[in-house]
Amino acid sequence: LKGEIITIGSELVSGLVVDENSAYIAQRLVSVGIEPFYLTSVGDDEGAIEDALLRAVGRVGVVITSGGLGPTPDDITSRTVAKALGKRLVLMPEALEYIRRRYEKRGIDVPGTAQRQALMPYGSQVLANPIGTAPGYYIPHAGKHLFFVPGVPEEARAIVEQEILPVITEEIPREFYVARRVLKIFGLTESQVYEKVKDISYDPSKVSLGFLPVFPENHLSITARSHHGENQAFEVLEQVEESMRAVLGEVIFGHDDETMEEVVAGLLLSKGVTLAVAESLTGGLLAQRLTTVPGSSLYFDRGIIGYSNTAKSDHLCVDPLLISEFGAVSAPVAEAMARGIKEVSGTDVGVSMTGIAGPSGGSEQKPVGTVYIALCYDAEEGVAVKSRHYQFFGDRHRIRLITSEMALEWIRRYLLAEDPADMVH
Amino acid sequence: LKGEIITIGSELVSGLVVDENSAYIAQRLVSVGIEPFYLTSVGDDEGAIEDALLRAVGRVGVVITSGGLGPTPDDITSRTVAKALGKRLVLMPEALEYIRRRYEKRGIDVPGTAQRQALMPYGSQVLANPIGTAPGYYIPHAGKHLFFVPGVPEEARAIVEQEILPVITEEIPREFYVARRVLKIFGLTESQVYEKVKDISYDPSKVSLGFLPVFPENHLSITARSHHGENQAFEVLEQVEESMRAVLGEVIFGHDDETMEEVVAGLLLSKGVTLAVAESLTGGLLAQRLTTVPGSSLYFDRGIIGYSNTAKSDHLCVDPLLISEFGAVSAPVAEAMARGIKEVSGTDVGVSMTGIAGPSGGSEQKPVGTVYIALCYDAEEGVAVKSRHYQFFGDRHRIRLITSEMALEWIRRYLLAEDPADMVH
Repeated sequence: LKGEIITIGSELVSGLVVDENSAYIAQRLVSVGIEPFYLTSVGDDEGAIEDALLRAVGRVGVVITSGGLGPTPDDITSRTVAKALGKRLVLMPEALEYIRRRYEKRGIDVPGTAQRQALMPYGSQVLANPIGTAPGYYIPHAGKHLFFVPGVPEEARAIVEQEILPVITEEIPREFYVARRVLKIFGLTESQVYEKVKDISYDPSKVSLGFLPVFPENHLSITARSHHGENQAFEVLEQVEESMRAVLGEVIFGHDDETMEEVVAGLLLSKGVTLAVAESLTGGLLAQRLTTVPGSSLYFDRGIIGYSNTAKSDHLCVDPLLISEFGAVSAPVAEAMARGIKEVSGTDVGVSMTGIAGPSGGSEQKPVGTVYIALCYDAEEGVAVKSRHYQFFGDRHRIRLITSEMALEWIRRYLLAEDPADMVH
Repeated sequence: LKGEIITIGSELVSGLVVDENSAYIAQRLVSVGIEPFYLTSVGDDEGAIEDALLRAVGRVGVVITSGGLGPTPDDITSRTVAKALGKRLVLMPEALEYIRRRYEKRGIDVPGTAQRQALMPYGSQVLANPIGTAPGYYIPHAGKHLFFVPGVPEEARAIVEQEILPVITEEIPREFYVARRVLKIFGLTESQVYEKVKDISYDPSKVSLGFLPVFPENHLSITARSHHGENQAFEVLEQVEESMRAVLGEVIFGHDDETMEEVVAGLLLSKGVTLAVAESLTGGLLAQRLTTVPGSSLYFDRGIIGYSNTAKSDHLCVDPLLISEFGAVSAPVAEAMARGIKEVSGTDVGVSMTGIAGPSGGSEQKPVGTVYIALCYDAEEGVAVKSRHYQFFGDRHRIRLITSEMALEWIRRYLLAEDPADMVH
């Protein structure tokens, strides 16, 4: 069965906003055996919405529409859908009650305009919105399955996951099964990944590969299809995945939705290792990434963002003479920061980064992108510290991002190493 | 005149890749007086490409298509376009020469497959690709203007800028001019914004408004159109903007591409105020946002992420008795953190946040989302500190994000206040 996605909003067609909903919803449709066919964006324009909807209904069995369900007058999706499908627009008491409760929970009176969000085409089934006030709805129509969600990405995603996918799985006989794995790689370029995997053989009628650079990572997707069942698709997938893992090895840090910080957090928790960080150019980005993971207080003790030199001395016990001799951006200072943060926090590991994010602050000897990373850990003869120099490229945002990623990679490698002393990176 | 954008690629319709070309091209079309109507994505599928192209040609005057011009067998755009328009596919010597030179420049032999990229529908005009090897092309067809560019975003953008916009400006009489402003708001819900601005009168034939929630902010776009010239469009815009600013006041923190952190950074720099921050639940997010701005070392001294209680005592001189009496998440501790960070850093302002980001760690008295923010500053009688309790809602990510945004808003309000003592928030 084929599907289409229609995203509605003048901010989309006029280019003010990049449409992130279509790709997300498309991926989720594939996962339940629906093949996306067209993705269309139209403005808050009655004629265009009606035309796009009716064409999609004429072409495919599943249509998911996002946008135009808000409380303001430019939100005309429900009215237009009702007209296009020849249905009345009715006030859904269930939706109204739902909206009322959402506002009540926050202690806000229901604004008059919010009631508009309870108006839906006759025959709609309300889809709960676990995040926002605008509920979605489902209209079974002439053997087709039409779903409507708000345009706010988090809300659209939540309704797709919690409400729409279960309906599709229950209502639509499965035609094909897909197994998909995204291998996440840090440390190789796209071309290097391709060179490593290009001789692996697979049946292209069953498997497709995708190469996707997501700075500073490279993601490699493997999609396996089978008409015979989920297990068959998984078997095909596993074979290819195994070959990929054999040639790529430990540059694969995770898979699917796992982020680098989640992988590192998982390792820290399972090994019972505690950590503190000392940052400069990344300005808190490493600590922020390490603490996005729920339960991070079990392994993360503190972070010091020593932007000024005195901050480095005050909290990390970095000798001011070291800074004046080697400069704040140097291996000795990075190492002193790592030692200092480990000592002051009493954690198992201390990690530090110092460098020049740019655009200004670079010199001939230490150009923008010069970065030192250091890691301090307990060794037999006391504490040991390792550091390394990197030259990164790109704008301020990219240099900060790749620096934090490399620091996470250091922690990952340290936690995976048989003997930290052998940890080369 | 209306325009459409068609992006081609199976990675788009299957959701592996977010389509960034459409929004970019749409924005550029608007800037030269072409109104985008539909944005469509289709896979590398002959039937779908042909259908999408012919429908677009039937509906609008300008069509820009991206994708499917690469050297591999799944790149079928040119062949399909030729078929759809009833034109022969011909080898363009100009394009071949162009491709040859691109490879030569890199010292690589032209691969046999690359010659495919010189095959174009009869009557095409080659559009130079300043970045990659795949040239684009322009087909004037039955009074319509059809443009084709590769899917790689950087290449598509370069051809649009350097080749397509000049052709449009020269070939198509200008029908309208657009002036656009996005007002960025923090502190009101979408409905509240709407309630405030709904009685402002404007000519809907000349002005359109867009309401866009981008958590935790709300963005309000004003688009003014004029048939008479750029200045006229700006005049219309300015009138509406002035009315909006009059009713919304200082909840508007910035406009267009400005971020909250850039606005705060600009104020800190222009007023010569220095700052240090003490974080807990946000884990470095506030510091990270404050330091994304180039030159942040001029106002940002340090950040302490005191995740553990000892870290709060070690670096911020928070009395452990205070923590045991009131709890780490409390107004007295938030205030002590703000005082501590200001004192230890010697900056003009100290900002602190303490709270519960969840999902665990909440209690009946202090549920997930409980947050205290405090700001410490120099007053006549020494240092003064203000704090406030908030109850935020949502998942860990949202609670951390809105907390950091609210702290930035505190700094902004402090810097704008005539007398900080009056600063109410």
